[in-house]
Amino acid sequence: MRFVIIGGDAAGMSAASRAKRMQPDTEVIVLEKTEDVSYSACGMPYNIADADREVEDLVVRKAEVFRQKQGIDLFTGYRAEAIDPVNRTVTGTIVDNGEPFRFVYDRLLIATGGRPIIPDLPGFDLPGVLALKSLEDGRRIKSFIRNQSVKKAVIAGMGYIGLEMAEALRERNIAVDMVKPRPDLLPWMHRDLAAIVEKELIDNQVGLHAGCTITGIEKNADGLNVVCEDRSLSADMVLAAIGIRPNSELAADAGIETGINDAISVNRHLQTSDEAIYAAGDCADAVHVVTGEKTWIPLALRANRAGWAVADNVCGRPTALEGVAGTSVFKVFNLEVARTGLSLAEARRADFEPVEVVIKSRSRAHAHPGAQTIRVNLVGDTRSGRLLGAQMVGPEGVAHRINAVAVALHNRMTAAGFSQTDLAYAPPFSPVWDPLLTAANQLLKKV
Amino acid sequence: MRFVIIGGDAAGMSAASRAKRMQPDTEVIVLEKTEDVSYSACGMPYNIADADREVEDLVVRKAEVFRQKQGIDLFTGYRAEAIDPVNRTVTGTIVDNGEPFRFVYDRLLIATGGRPIIPDLPGFDLPGVLALKSLEDGRRIKSFIRNQSVKKAVIAGMGYIGLEMAEALRERNIAVDMVKPRPDLLPWMHRDLAAIVEKELIDNQVGLHAGCTITGIEKNADGLNVVCEDRSLSADMVLAAIGIRPNSELAADAGIETGINDAISVNRHLQTSDEAIYAAGDCADAVHVVTGEKTWIPLALRANRAGWAVADNVCGRPTALEGVAGTSVFKVFNLEVARTGLSLAEARRADFEPVEVVIKSRSRAHAHPGAQTIRVNLVGDTRSGRLLGAQMVGPEGVAHRINAVAVALHNRMTAAGFSQTDLAYAPPFSPVWDPLLTAANQLLKKV
Repeated sequence: MRFVIIGGDAAGMSAASRAKRMQPDTEVIVLEKTEDVSYSACGMPYNIADADREVEDLVVRKAEVFRQKQGIDLFTGYRAEAIDPVNRTVTGTIVDNGEPFRFVYDRLLIATGGRPIIPDLPGFDLPGVLALKSLEDGRRIKSFIRNQSVKKAVIAGMGYIGLEMAEALRERNIAVDMVKPRPDLLPWMHRDLAAIVEKELIDNQVGLHAGCTITGIEKNADGLNVVCEDRSLSADMVLAAIGIRPNSELAADAGIETGINDAISVNRHLQTSDEAIYAAGDCADAVHVVTGEKTWIPLALRANRAGWAVADNVCGRPTALEGVAGTSVFKVFNLEVARTGLSLAEARRADFEPVEVVIKSRSRAHAHPGAQTIRVNLVGDTRSGRLLGAQMVGPEGVAHRINAVAVALHNRMTAAGFSQTDLAYAPPFSPVWDPLLTAANQLLKKV
Repeated sequence: MRFVIIGGDAAGMSAASRAKRMQPDTEVIVLEKTEDVSYSACGMPYNIADADREVEDLVVRKAEVFRQKQGIDLFTGYRAEAIDPVNRTVTGTIVDNGEPFRFVYDRLLIATGGRPIIPDLPGFDLPGVLALKSLEDGRRIKSFIRNQSVKKAVIAGMGYIGLEMAEALRERNIAVDMVKPRPDLLPWMHRDLAAIVEKELIDNQVGLHAGCTITGIEKNADGLNVVCEDRSLSADMVLAAIGIRPNSELAADAGIETGINDAISVNRHLQTSDEAIYAAGDCADAVHVVTGEKTWIPLALRANRAGWAVADNVCGRPTALEGVAGTSVFKVFNLEVARTGLSLAEARRADFEPVEVVIKSRSRAHAHPGAQTIRVNLVGDTRSGRLLGAQMVGPEGVAHRINAVAVALHNRMTAAGFSQTDLAYAPPFSPVWDPLLTAANQLLKKV
């Protein structure tokens, strides 16, 4: 059997490795348009923060290892350009020499990932206007900072990649201004929690310009000028971190169904509307375990997990994925910020009758030195009593705590049920009542 | 209604406060034999570690607050000595003046806690041989260290209180030897994980004497001599940290049923065999959510939670507790050690057909600076596929991670279900596959 995979990062290489391991006689062909495979894209801000580290550190497994040790036919520099579902072929161009290629498949995996959204505005094509998604982007940013002695940067967008990059650039003593058109920082977040993140950014000398619409970028004698409706920000470098979108055009052009956020629609077995064609990773959608509806949350764990599940299905071990809870975490300077499930507004949109609480608690026990404030937002449904989501912010004890709620959401637990869980307590790590339990106890009064 | 409570710590004062808050016209009487109420016993090792901190820092709420602000009739120095279930009375002695007292109750809560096990061996009554449970014990240890300029201590027992005290004493530059009769450190732990804890103790110059039975303690010119069958250890201070047992005699003498570990048997509503009498905290048992059987795990969260539930039940809001998962965590020098659910041996004893895995993973992502090794042990049942328990050891990222498994156990999740959970990932906090997921994926191959 010939299993062809388009895209050689998280989902693609996970599927390739697992398929070859499960069923060594499967011919596994991976077509990757760049020269980079299997790297930790999420690690890039932290790599950029350190001038002395090589970008290549982020490579998890080298192409040679896949080829020689694992027996995967990995073609880098092969750009897939068309899928023919009737004749089960993928065609494209070899980047280096412009030669065409054509592969026949029995099973196909589309793992084309996503790409940064670049606004269609004047100046976003200027040198020094960069985005961060691929390893090549990382190299480009790092060498630009070095070669141009970047002192000032503007980040367009205030999502978690923007925030991680703000920290990375401040680490390197680069002045940072962040710009976004909408007025709210992290609009999905409870305002009390978002205010803590905002303060952390201001305390770290990040200039925040929320509610500013960029109209274009201009080149001037010194560098660049980011022009907004009501102000203008000078910069040596501009980072476009507005968001990403799924690379689903190849699939759509082949008549494969796309849906939410233009991501490729897949069933729980990761099959697209063509049953011989799978999709996984940032290009594909998933089911949200709280709503039961389709969602598009491009994150690394689900890409890896979906890659594995595709391999299982292709190799004859039927595997269905349950879905995502929408769990995510990021660090911004000295804060840990985490969420899972639905915010109040999302819960309303999903036709729940939600209520929420916000509590302040401590990261360590009463009278334990070093305790920090943790803020927890919990959302519950008044109709069913179900727990629907959580958000947390604090300098410690946030990142892993969120997982308890994620597991509760997978089990469709009620707030009452969650409030009875036996969570760990020792003075260096928690109050007797874990902050999550304190929040659940408060929520219980409302649901 | 008159609600009498024997014992003024976690369970007792939680019940008292909540009952008074829920139903202010309830007469709430608390009888506490010491002068201390509502303190963080778990915080004592950390308080002892710091010569400059007052033991009184550990008091969460002062007696006056309960009396004046909350309207609780709190009698300190009142030692309850007998319960008469027929006439619904509690009698005892006022410690200060030896006068008798007698209270009639409508509902009674026994929250008498536990006490350290002191071996019936020569010398355990010598000055300088101390135990740690009450706040008074804490004061005694702290003043003994100061007044006697303690330079060397022997700790009898290697449970988590012993281990926390070893760290506390080393903090104060006191040489520490630990002694226990059985050969294994933390016998409930997977040996690979226990070996890490052992190394941490040795690296911090704690002398470990496992497999040494103490035959007695002798006084010598310099201080004390802990005599074992095959060796003798000199010390300025000896700490008995062998374990605790429930203070259930008062209940047993009144004909109230006791069970596992001689703890007072309670139903899910915290009622004893006499329906007007409740028991909560370290003196009472609980249901284990994994086995469905009775268990006795004296820990602070369940004491507080049970106190609340008793108040709810007494005040006419029927509340049943689901039970405990056996979650616990402690810090030992630079290690976090956590568990929840059953070990392999416990699962066998509970008639499961268990298998286990042990994996090594990292606390942060591939190539992220500062990543540390985390070891995870997961136990699953081959018959049902259920996840049964987890243990974890590592320098970071352990304490809160265990909660995800605890929630899974409350939901009787399978290993397969758990392996699909959407746990948080960001490079500073986790590999893409959280260590728990890596362990679950391995366990799946066995269950």
